[in-house]
Amino acid sequence: MDNFSFQCITKLCFGKDQQKKIGARIQPFAKKVLLVYGGGSIKKSGLYDEVVASLTEAGIAHVELSGVQANPTYEKVLEGIEIAKKEQVQMILAVGGGSVIDTSKAIAIGFYEADAWSFFEKGGEPSNVLPIATVLTIPAAGSEVSPDAVITYKGRKLGFSSQKIRPVVSVINPEIFFTLPKNQIANGVTDMMSHIFERYFTQTTHTELIDSLCEATLRTIMRNALILMKDPKNYDAWSEVALGGSFAHNGLLGCGRIQDWGCHGMEHELSAHDDRVPHGAGLAVLTPNWMKYVYKENPQMFLQFATNVMEVTLDRDTEKTILRGIDKLRDFFSTIGQPATLTELGIGNAPLAEMANKCVGNGYTGNFKPLYQEDVHNIYKMSL
Amino acid sequence: MDNFSFQCITKLCFGKDQQKKIGARIQPFAKKVLLVYGGGSIKKSGLYDEVVASLTEAGIAHVELSGVQANPTYEKVLEGIEIAKKEQVQMILAVGGGSVIDTSKAIAIGFYEADAWSFFEKGGEPSNVLPIATVLTIPAAGSEVSPDAVITYKGRKLGFSSQKIRPVVSVINPEIFFTLPKNQIANGVTDMMSHIFERYFTQTTHTELIDSLCEATLRTIMRNALILMKDPKNYDAWSEVALGGSFAHNGLLGCGRIQDWGCHGMEHELSAHDDRVPHGAGLAVLTPNWMKYVYKENPQMFLQFATNVMEVTLDRDTEKTILRGIDKLRDFFSTIGQPATLTELGIGNAPLAEMANKCVGNGYTGNFKPLYQEDVHNIYKMSL
Repeated sequence: MDNFSFQCITKLCFGKDQQKKIGARIQPFAKKVLLVYGGGSIKKSGLYDEVVASLTEAGIAHVELSGVQANPTYEKVLEGIEIAKKEQVQMILAVGGGSVIDTSKAIAIGFYEADAWSFFEKGGEPSNVLPIATVLTIPAAGSEVSPDAVITYKGRKLGFSSQKIRPVVSVINPEIFFTLPKNQIANGVTDMMSHIFERYFTQTTHTELIDSLCEATLRTIMRNALILMKDPKNYDAWSEVALGGSFAHNGLLGCGRIQDWGCHGMEHELSAHDDRVPHGAGLAVLTPNWMKYVYKENPQMFLQFATNVMEVTLDRDTEKTILRGIDKLRDFFSTIGQPATLTELGIGNAPLAEMANKCVGNGYTGNFKPLYQEDVHNIYKMSL
Repeated sequence: MDNFSFQCITKLCFGKDQQKKIGARIQPFAKKVLLVYGGGSIKKSGLYDEVVASLTEAGIAHVELSGVQANPTYEKVLEGIEIAKKEQVQMILAVGGGSVIDTSKAIAIGFYEADAWSFFEKGGEPSNVLPIATVLTIPAAGSEVSPDAVITYKGRKLGFSSQKIRPVVSVINPEIFFTLPKNQIANGVTDMMSHIFERYFTQTTHTELIDSLCEATLRTIMRNALILMKDPKNYDAWSEVALGGSFAHNGLLGCGRIQDWGCHGMEHELSAHDDRVPHGAGLAVLTPNWMKYVYKENPQMFLQFATNVMEVTLDRDTEKTILRGIDKLRDFFSTIGQPATLTELGIGNAPLAEMANKCVGNGYTGNFKPLYQEDVHNIYKMSL
C-alpha cells in the first residue's frame, strides 16, 4: 500500500423523496442559487417542480441556466458565469447527470476566477469556488461525489480536478432513475465499472482491503444491473447500482495505489472522433481488449479479477482462468446491450493510428502497462 | 435499503512518516494548539519529538495536556478546557488512541460550551467546537474518523455523538503500531470487528452493497490480524488492519440500515463493573454468545455471515452452517488470545442480573433482536 491522503466532504443524501428536502439541506449555504439543468426531461418528470418547491419552502431564491447538453461546452459555462455574477448567487444547484454537474463545477470556479478554462488547460488550484449541490438524474459519471469535471472548448475535451469542486451536498433518489432508457442504464453501469477498473488494476502490492472493496462493488453493480435490464423500476436494484456508482468515483477505491486510467484515455479519442459514441459504449468495446493486451504484465492480478469479480472457477491453467474472466466480462457487456467492436459503434473506418497518436501525445497513457502509440493502435485494431 | 445521509469530513493521511507532516497539515486551522496525550510511551518511542518538531517547523505553538488514561474522565477534560481557554488555542491535536481522542473531543466542546458534560448526559448539538486533529497510536476505537466520544464522570460512562466533533485531519502511520503488545492488538482487532458486526447484523433488507463491503472488511481484518500475532512489525498487515479499523467506524458501513449495538451495550456493563476488563476482551466473550442467542431471528443473515465472512462451506443443514460460522469466530478470537468466558475475564462472580438491569434501563438494548433484561441476563449466563 502506498502512502495516501483521502477526504470526501460530500454529504450524500440517499433515498426516497430526498429531492424534496434539497432546500433545507442547502439553506446553510445560500439564500440565492443558480439552478443548472439540461433539457425538458426534469420538467416532464415533475422533478423540476419538486426542487423549485423545496427551494421556495426554504426561502431560497433561484435563477436558471438550462440547456446543458452531453459533452458540455465552455460556452455554456461562460453563460452560467455571467448569470451567476450578475445575480450574485451564493451556490450552484445542479439537477442532472455528469454534464450538468461538470458545467456547474466550472461555473463555480469562474464565479471567482477570471479565466476558468485556464484551469482545464494548465491545472492549478482556484483561489475560491462557489459551493455546489446536486440532485442526480443519471448514475454514471460519479461527478456528484468527485473532485473532477470535464469540459469541451475549441475542439478540446479537457479534465480538471480539485478538492474544492466536490459537491457539498448530493441527493440520490433511485426513484428518479426509473424512466431512464436501457442504453443509458448500460452506459452508466459501464462507466462506473470502468471507474473501478481504472483503480483496481494496479502494480502496487499489498492492497488487499481496497482490492476486496473494489471486487465487492463490481459484483454488486453487475448483479443488480442485470436486474435493471429486465425491471428498470426496481428500487432496490437501483439503490445498489447508484450507491455503487458513487463509491466507484468518490476516491475511496483508489486509496494507496497507483491507478491506471488507460481505458478512459483511449475512449476519449473515440468520443472525440465522433461525439455520437457514448462514453460507456466506447469503454465496453475497449476494456476487454485492453485486458487481453495487458494481462501478461501481472497475471496474478487478472487471476484475482477472474475469480473474485467474474466468479470464474479456478483452473490449474492460469491463462485459461484469466481469459475466461475476460470473456465473462465481454459476455456481461453484451447481455446489457453494449457493442463489442468499433464497427458496431459505427466508427470502423476511424483513423486509428492518428487517434492513437493524439491519445498518447508525446508520452504514454495508463500505468498498469504504460501504453505508447503502438500499443494504443494495437488495442484499437483488436477492437475493430 | 433505508434512506440515509452520510458525510465523513475527516482527511485521512495514511502511511510512512505522515506524522512528520502533521504541522503542515494543520497549519490552515491553527497557530496554537493543545497537544493531548497519555503517558510516556510517545516520548519513549520518539513520536512526541517528531510531532513537536513538525509543529515547530510549521510555526505552530503548543501547550500540553498529558496523563490521559483508559476510560477517560471528565475531570481530565475539565483540566484540558481550562488550559485551552487560558492559552486561547485554536485547535486540539490528539496524539494517542481512543481515550486521548475522546478526551480531545470533549475539550473541543467545552472550549465553547459552559457545560460539556451536559451533552453526554442529555445529547443536543454544541453551538461550536474547536477543530480536532489526531495522530493515531492504537487502531481500535475508530475515534480518529468517528463523530463519537465516550467519557466517564461520577461513575457514569456516557457517549456523545455529533458530526461537529469528527476530526478534520487524522494521521495513521502503521509503523507507529509496531511496538504494541499482543493483547492490545487483539483488543483493537476485536473492537473494530465489533464495530462492523454492530452495523452488519440488521433486519433491514436489500443491503447488498454495504453487506459485501462489511464482509470484505471483516475478512481482511481477520486475515491480517493473524499475521500480526506472529509478526507484529509487519507493515503491510498493519496497513490493512488499521485502514479496516477506520472504515469500520467512519459510518460508511452503516449506511442505509438499522444498526444493532447490543454487544457494545452489554460490554459496557462488564467494563463498568470492573474497569480492568478491556473493552475488546469483553466483546470477544459476549459476541459469539449473542450470535447463538439471536440467530433464529434471521437465519439467512447468519448463513450469509457464516459463508461470506467466516468462509464456512455451505451445508444442506442451515443450522449446522450457522453454528459452524459462530464456532469459527470463537476459534478466531481464541487464536488471537482472547478469553471465551466471563470467568476467564476474572468476573465470573459478577452480579449478572443487576448488570443486565443497568444495561437495559427501562427498555431494551440492540435492534437485531431487542434484548430485554432477561435476554441480557441469559447472554451473560451463557458467557460464564
